[in-house]
Amino acid sequence: MCRSTLGHAFDSARLAARLMKRERLVVRSGGRRGLFDLTGACERFVSGEGDGLLSVFVPHATAGVVVMELGAGSDTDLEAALDRLLPRDDRYRHRHGSPGHGADHVLPLLAPPSVTVPVVDGRLALGTWQSIALLDPNADNDERSVLLGFIPG
Amino acid sequence: MCRSTLGHAFDSARLAARLMKRERLVVRSGGRRGLFDLTGACERFVSGEGDGLLSVFVPHATAGVVVMELGAGSDTDLEAALDRLLPRDDRYRHRHGSPGHGADHVLPLLAPPSVTVPVVDGRLALGTWQSIALLDPNADNDERSVLLGFIPG
Amino acid sequence: MCRSTLGHAFDSARLAARLMKRERLVVRSGGRRGLFDLTGACERFVSGEGDGLLSVFVPHATAGVVVMELGAGSDTDLEAALDRLLPRDDRYRHRHGSPGHGADHVLPLLAPPSVTVPVVDGRLALGTWQSIALLDPNADNDERSVLLGFIPG
Repeated sequence: MCRSTLGHAFDSARLAARLMKRERLVVRSGGRRGLFDLTGACERFVSGEGDGLLSVFVPHATAGVVVMELGAGSDTDLEAALDRLLPRDDRYRHRHGSPGHGADHVLPLLAPPSVTVPVVDGRLALGTWQSIALLDPNADNDERSVLLGFIPG
Repeated sequence: MCRSTLGHAFDSARLAARLMKRERLVVRSGGRRGLFDLTGACERFVSGEGDGLLSVFVPHATAGVVVMELGAGSDTDLEAALDRLLPRDDRYRHRHGSPGHGADHVLPLLAPPSVTVPVVDGRLALGTWQSIALLDPNADNDERSVLLGFIPG
Repeated sequence: MCRSTLGHAFDSARLAARLMKRERLVVRSGGRRGLFDLTGACERFVSGEGDGLLSVFVPHATAGVVVMELGAGSDTDLEAALDRLLPRDDRYRHRHGSPGHGADHVLPLLAPPSVTVPVVDGRLALGTWQSIALLDPNADNDERSVLLGFIPG
């Protein structure tokens, strides 16, 4: 009876479900600059969970996360805007790697490495045209990591 | 006695309070571009809660969330800066809707659709001059949704 | 035996650890504009915790948070980019304080006041070159607050 009282108050599986779930994605950019779609991986990560918050975090100083429409020209438009706002020339103090790499280190002024997306019943609460993308302006890396965390609510 | 031991360890109401609370706001922009104050709605949403995190998320590819001072000229300044940084001309590949709409799809490079605000004892921990606002540069919609989520901590 | 069953299902210390931990940092900027490293304070704040999310929030309308490499020239590069993108001239409607202060109120278009960083086993999951910094372009204040919150997961 003591056990069943416990079971009534909460069940341990449910409590367990409150632990943060974590995963490290590896994005093979092949040294290509640009936007890399993470939406499918994020959807799979939260699938089967309930409600909560998805944290997407890029542990790199020269990459960010953006939530935007992909695949209808805006990818190219965003990359062009980035190169216009942060020109890849020799104005930067920080100089190493490829020409213009100093600009990559200023990216966090515009695109942060972190975004939080609500999850409802195991599904990302994204709008119809929203995708989650890694923005990697830096061609000096072949591979990038992205950390996913799900906080059940 | 078993029950009272349980009650001592935690109480079920408190555990229940740990579930994420959710709400969908509808902002009637009436096809007007600009900033829309969400602060009052966010305050009401967390009122009566304890400590935790408020997640504000805009499920639209052409709108964002900013936390800023409203009502003392900076609204207009921010809108002017946006139009200067992302000019509403025909440079964009993504073309549909009103002239300059391609710029709206690049907005996520600057203003993300998500912000997280700490909540202390049912009150937003905003600074004196901070408001939470929807930034909608896109006049092609009459109505926007904003998703609020409160994760108790 | 009832107690030991309880202890098996969860322990109250662990449950207690699920409460949000909070701290207010005071950054003495001495009226200096620029970037102020918060990484050490954030590390100390989450040290000894388990997994979860760190929320860093700046309760000021004219300051933001950035996650970037510090100390290798990029600090200066980012400040120069900010002054180029949001020039400190008299174009702004919002005018008070030091010359160019109107630009500070537009900062939230670029750098939000909030970032969320995953914590794994009491350590920030930052990349090798990432630091968490307060970005304060406003020289009119001697002191700034930063709110840290840790949501255990």
